[in-house]
Amino acid sequence: MTQPDAQTLERVRSALRAQRIETPSWAYANSGTRFKVFAQEGVPRNPYEKVADAAVVHRLTGVAPTVALHIPWDRVDDYADLAGYATDHGVGLGAINANVFQDNDYKLGSVTNPDPGVRRKAIDHLLECVDIMDRTGSRDLKLWFSDGTNYPGQDDLRARQDRLAAALRETYDRLGDGQRLLLEYKLFEPAFYATDVPDWGTAYAHCLELGPKAQVVIDTGHHAPGTNIEFIVAFLLRAGKLGAFDFNSRFYADDDLMVGSADPFQLFRIMHEIVRGDALAPEAGIAFMLDQCHNIEPKIPAIIRSVLNVQEATAKALLVDPDALAEAQRAGDVLAANAVLMDAYNTDVRPLLAELRTDLGLDPDPMAAYARSGYFEKIRAERADGQQAGWGA
Amino acid sequence: MTQPDAQTLERVRSALRAQRIETPSWAYANSGTRFKVFAQEGVPRNPYEKVADAAVVHRLTGVAPTVALHIPWDRVDDYADLAGYATDHGVGLGAINANVFQDNDYKLGSVTNPDPGVRRKAIDHLLECVDIMDRTGSRDLKLWFSDGTNYPGQDDLRARQDRLAAALRETYDRLGDGQRLLLEYKLFEPAFYATDVPDWGTAYAHCLELGPKAQVVIDTGHHAPGTNIEFIVAFLLRAGKLGAFDFNSRFYADDDLMVGSADPFQLFRIMHEIVRGDALAPEAGIAFMLDQCHNIEPKIPAIIRSVLNVQEATAKALLVDPDALAEAQRAGDVLAANAVLMDAYNTDVRPLLAELRTDLGLDPDPMAAYARSGYFEKIRAERADGQQAGWGA
Amino acid sequence: MTQPDAQTLERVRSALRAQRIETPSWAYANSGTRFKVFAQEGVPRNPYEKVADAAVVHRLTGVAPTVALHIPWDRVDDYADLAGYATDHGVGLGAINANVFQDNDYKLGSVTNPDPGVRRKAIDHLLECVDIMDRTGSRDLKLWFSDGTNYPGQDDLRARQDRLAAALRETYDRLGDGQRLLLEYKLFEPAFYATDVPDWGTAYAHCLELGPKAQVVIDTGHHAPGTNIEFIVAFLLRAGKLGAFDFNSRFYADDDLMVGSADPFQLFRIMHEIVRGDALAPEAGIAFMLDQCHNIEPKIPAIIRSVLNVQEATAKALLVDPDALAEAQRAGDVLAANAVLMDAYNTDVRPLLAELRTDLGLDPDPMAAYARSGYFEKIRAERADGQQAGWGA
Amino acid sequence: MTQPDAQTLERVRSALRAQRIETPSWAYANSGTRFKVFAQEGVPRNPYEKVADAAVVHRLTGVAPTVALHIPWDRVDDYADLAGYATDHGVGLGAINANVFQDNDYKLGSVTNPDPGVRRKAIDHLLECVDIMDRTGSRDLKLWFSDGTNYPGQDDLRARQDRLAAALRETYDRLGDGQRLLLEYKLFEPAFYATDVPDWGTAYAHCLELGPKAQVVIDTGHHAPGTNIEFIVAFLLRAGKLGAFDFNSRFYADDDLMVGSADPFQLFRIMHEIVRGDALAPEAGIAFMLDQCHNIEPKIPAIIRSVLNVQEATAKALLVDPDALAEAQRAGDVLAANAVLMDAYNTDVRPLLAELRTDLGLDPDPMAAYARSGYFEKIRAERADGQQAGWGA
Repeated sequence: MTQPDAQTLERVRSALRAQRIETPSWAYANSGTRFKVFAQEGVPRNPYEKVADAAVVHRLTGVAPTVALHIPWDRVDDYADLAGYATDHGVGLGAINANVFQDNDYKLGSVTNPDPGVRRKAIDHLLECVDIMDRTGSRDLKLWFSDGTNYPGQDDLRARQDRLAAALRETYDRLGDGQRLLLEYKLFEPAFYATDVPDWGTAYAHCLELGPKAQVVIDTGHHAPGTNIEFIVAFLLRAGKLGAFDFNSRFYADDDLMVGSADPFQLFRIMHEIVRGDALAPEAGIAFMLDQCHNIEPKIPAIIRSVLNVQEATAKALLVDPDALAEAQRAGDVLAANAVLMDAYNTDVRPLLAELRTDLGLDPDPMAAYARSGYFEKIRAERADGQQAGWGA
Repeated sequence: MTQPDAQTLERVRSALRAQRIETPSWAYANSGTRFKVFAQEGVPRNPYEKVADAAVVHRLTGVAPTVALHIPWDRVDDYADLAGYATDHGVGLGAINANVFQDNDYKLGSVTNPDPGVRRKAIDHLLECVDIMDRTGSRDLKLWFSDGTNYPGQDDLRARQDRLAAALRETYDRLGDGQRLLLEYKLFEPAFYATDVPDWGTAYAHCLELGPKAQVVIDTGHHAPGTNIEFIVAFLLRAGKLGAFDFNSRFYADDDLMVGSADPFQLFRIMHEIVRGDALAPEAGIAFMLDQCHNIEPKIPAIIRSVLNVQEATAKALLVDPDALAEAQRAGDVLAANAVLMDAYNTDVRPLLAELRTDLGLDPDPMAAYARSGYFEKIRAERADGQQAGWGA
Repeated sequence: MTQPDAQTLERVRSALRAQRIETPSWAYANSGTRFKVFAQEGVPRNPYEKVADAAVVHRLTGVAPTVALHIPWDRVDDYADLAGYATDHGVGLGAINANVFQDNDYKLGSVTNPDPGVRRKAIDHLLECVDIMDRTGSRDLKLWFSDGTNYPGQDDLRARQDRLAAALRETYDRLGDGQRLLLEYKLFEPAFYATDVPDWGTAYAHCLELGPKAQVVIDTGHHAPGTNIEFIVAFLLRAGKLGAFDFNSRFYADDDLMVGSADPFQLFRIMHEIVRGDALAPEAGIAFMLDQCHNIEPKIPAIIRSVLNVQEATAKALLVDPDALAEAQRAGDVLAANAVLMDAYNTDVRPLLAELRTDLGLDPDPMAAYARSGYFEKIRAERADGQQAGWGA
Repeated sequence: MTQPDAQTLERVRSALRAQRIETPSWAYANSGTRFKVFAQEGVPRNPYEKVADAAVVHRLTGVAPTVALHIPWDRVDDYADLAGYATDHGVGLGAINANVFQDNDYKLGSVTNPDPGVRRKAIDHLLECVDIMDRTGSRDLKLWFSDGTNYPGQDDLRARQDRLAAALRETYDRLGDGQRLLLEYKLFEPAFYATDVPDWGTAYAHCLELGPKAQVVIDTGHHAPGTNIEFIVAFLLRAGKLGAFDFNSRFYADDDLMVGSADPFQLFRIMHEIVRGDALAPEAGIAFMLDQCHNIEPKIPAIIRSVLNVQEATAKALLVDPDALAEAQRAGDVLAANAVLMDAYNTDVRPLLAELRTDLGLDPDPMAAYARSGYFEKIRAERADGQQAGWGA
């Protein structure tokens, strides 16, 4: 409960000013569960409108300057034009997310499909995504495979690893300088028996095999119950193999709720490992992205709220006193060490962040500023006609 | 590994001949995950075609004489006509499943929605389902509510219970003689923070409050990891409050895989409690239903396989030697008691079931018989045009 | 982030002043895992010393005026003398916890054991505990049964429920006026296949059957992964069947860590349901107890820290603006309703609690006060000889 | 349900004759939970008696020719003498299991302890174990670390990895030719926040770093709920990094029940990956060990039953028709591929195994043979005096 000194506060503020969070184009679009997609008003109808919404989030928060694209959902004829549109709106295009799970051919898998023709098609899509990266100037190719099996015996688990390795290799070899392949893992869904990249160990092993341009993505909702995610963060940072986060939160499975809404303490512990591993600054090369589904809450404010949640967890993590912590840890003082961490967590960082925003010329309360802005009323009217974007469009 | 004597075998055969399993109309239709619905060939386009497919399953297995309907998916103008069509095909209409989760109004809940107007609409649908039961002659109204919340604070957990109780009461009071209200529980999905009927305890408490016509449905995929389902079976049977099963299987969440495919030993333990509780025979009033999604495997053979899996588990459960088991249990002989159970489980009951089918004039191998029947080729051709049925149609 | 007004603050302070938390005698004693008990210095050697330690916790926190006993661990010749000793130290004796799991006879269960002789012995112990309650003036008999089975078939799940019901009935009928039977449930451990009271539904059903003096205990560490505990709190409060809490925290199984240390947000949500259900005040009859194992951290400060954690969560719960919450819920404004809750959670309540302690004549920082008190140095010296208390002593 | 042909049967029999399962010395000793150790009659009092019991298991089953030791529990003055004793009884000494979790110094960890002195002590113990291996002729050093933390912040997760790596390196470098370091992972217990080797990915990464003599141990009870263990088996076999199994079974956490008793289908799937990966034969270098706690059932028959369970699962796995499976997988025929697997699983292999035993001059029913042997009556009398061995002795 000790107050941070001026030097600490300046360090914290400086780190927060430099923080960057990428929002995903698809979170602005309609989404749902297998039971129902509840369409919302004002949802974008194309990639341009998604970029426009992302720009609003950045304008209000000051820390969300890029938007990730999903191919083919965000396929456009002219990527340079889209990139220019983004620039005009004050944001940039971020990671390219490949989609090899929504074509009828992928029923039994994409790059691990037993059919070589389907594998070829899937790999070609991955290569196309690198072509798009060349045009958008994106650094990161983010790969999540829905590949897996629903029934024991359905396919050969080991042969699927061979096929996966081959597809990753071909894609990796296509990467240009300064481009990365980010491999995401997921315990289950949509495959219900075995997933071909079910855990960080699998992703790590493949990335190690591939080389330095391959790194692991941690989606915070993709773990078995009880998994200690911050351990994985610490481990991958130590190994130099953490590439990115897909932030969201969950109570049960891959619920894709707003990050920080289900277990804010976990998010803080994750950010503590990031700070401890000196990995917060953009130059550390970790991409902090959101990957969420706002099924019942309005999209843009939900994304603003999510960005704020990440900021608040980060601010708390930055307030952890590293010297006091190290000393208590060295002494084996369990309660004192835990207390150092909790002191920071229990601090109300909202005034600090409000002040920071004011310094940056932003409204101290982005949620209220959005509500007042009239943007929602505007898009509701403008986008009333046409086909709203959703997963698959 | 002792052989059952003739008397035991006759008891087993007799019980197996009397067994009844209900198949769900929606399992014949297209289904998928939130990521993709992979449409299949030959899928029914309307309730009549679903009934026709269910009739094939019964014709081949001999133990699936009824098909459950889902309203509004299976809404028809003339239910008497549909029932007659079923009779003509050798099957009957079973439970009526209400659907209060696919209308835009239900975004924040149906019977527990904070908006009284939406609650009224949802209750009216439940009452309409009882009207339909009057016309179809169905005994059971099966209620599953997707109601719940995604975020802490979103709604008042306790007020939602009050609303739920009121809706159930009104529906219960509308039931005629010989009709039942079956209440299903589910841990999560599509609600991701709190579900209004999350566990058997909640369903049990409401059913107890309602009265003797209200009973609990166990969907085998709706539990938290580690839940001992056979304990719930035993407990509800002892309390006289088990009404029905929704059979399926899961490795992770509500995967809706073929029953018996993920953990056949669990299915056996469930059927052992059924046999031990004298609840297998139709007159015991437990409805044994399937509730599955065949996302990547062909529908009809998957349902046949599921019916066979339930039969095999039942046959094994019937082979448990009750006297030897009771004696070992009384003696506190842990290994001997466990061995009595495992002896039955480890028995290959397929020859016994094949023989039984032959006795009943059926093909001993229903899977092979279906493959040979030409039925799939027929429906593939006949149903090539038109709109296939799916969740929501 | 709005500041609470004076009236709210007075309501909050008043509720916090009235709050009562019971500490468990056994948490002051040595404990460990199945792998190792790491003995600590200064640990009590008998019930009197445990009471003395509990008195220190109360003296420093002001909200822990009673200590729960565990029989036979805390068996003494003269309970009146122990009660007098407690009074002299400024505390009282609280709930009596029965122990029917550490005698060799209980290998296959206590009240559900297949052997009637063992069941008799176990029930006699429960009745003896009520005798002790008569002498200590305790209101609550807390029952946790380790009963269960390790292997399928080992015993008859349903017969065990019959035996359980009979034992509970006999014990219930022995209760005097103003005495209660509190039934605890637990998913697993030490039984590894089926537990005889595995979940709240089972405990609830038995308590309902027994009558108004029987209520359910929620141990926060006794649930399956993913269980929404605050839902259970809300449900049992609505049903008038919540009797007590055993507070602790867990990441995996029944880890028995300090309450609030693993998921402080969950503890806040639980306390929110308590406040919302008007169940915080002592007259509401809910017993708030700790039940923890301090395996590697020093006992007394760990218990002080736990008490503070409960206080902090309670303070935050009391700060939730009920009108704003109800309005947002009624309006179906998901983000606004969630924000009302989070506003309170994100508040740093430590200054408020420090002030409150000062008002009560306590040190604002109980942890520091304990460290300065010299109490540990004193007991380390005084208790260096003799046999330290532990589970089983 | 097709019958295997003569050639298949001979392949199956031959593989089963060559199968080797190692039993653990500590499973013959007393064990329990943190709540109670229920001592059993006839339990060994020293390593010699443990070896004698293991010899009985081998004599009756024919497939358990080695016994694993645990240091210091099985420390003797003269390991050559113990080895000779084993040889005289028809068995050999197997893996050496290090124990760095039962000394008071290890309260905050062994090789990852913040105190360098404790780390030195722990590493010295590991080196001592290699010395013992030199004397016993053991090939495998099995390392399981209870190291971890109970509270967030308690210690630095990343620094602990550095310390772990250093300790493993020093131990690895001490290994002689033909010796291996086998690293085990475990999700939790006795550490309840973070375990230093929580999952296969961590163990794999360290083993890869160490070199070819380091391999991963899979303990089947050490995973998060929902983990697909056979995937890990397949993955590690493909990577050449699977060293051994610790077999047991669990419903919840690390329950240490008899292998195959909780989920026999899972055990079959694991053995299917072993057969598919050509890893069953002793020359493949995978050590198949049991690691169980028989808390309530008699030790020796429980171990015999466990050995039989592994044999039965293996026999079923060997009966899977590889050609039919591969063809169905290649064709993408989900149901047919699954059916090939299930056909083998549903086969009753007990007659085949009984026949095999008879061929080997063994009793076809080892459980019955043990019961008839009088061995238990003998040890109960002989070992009535003295101190029985248990965890920690």
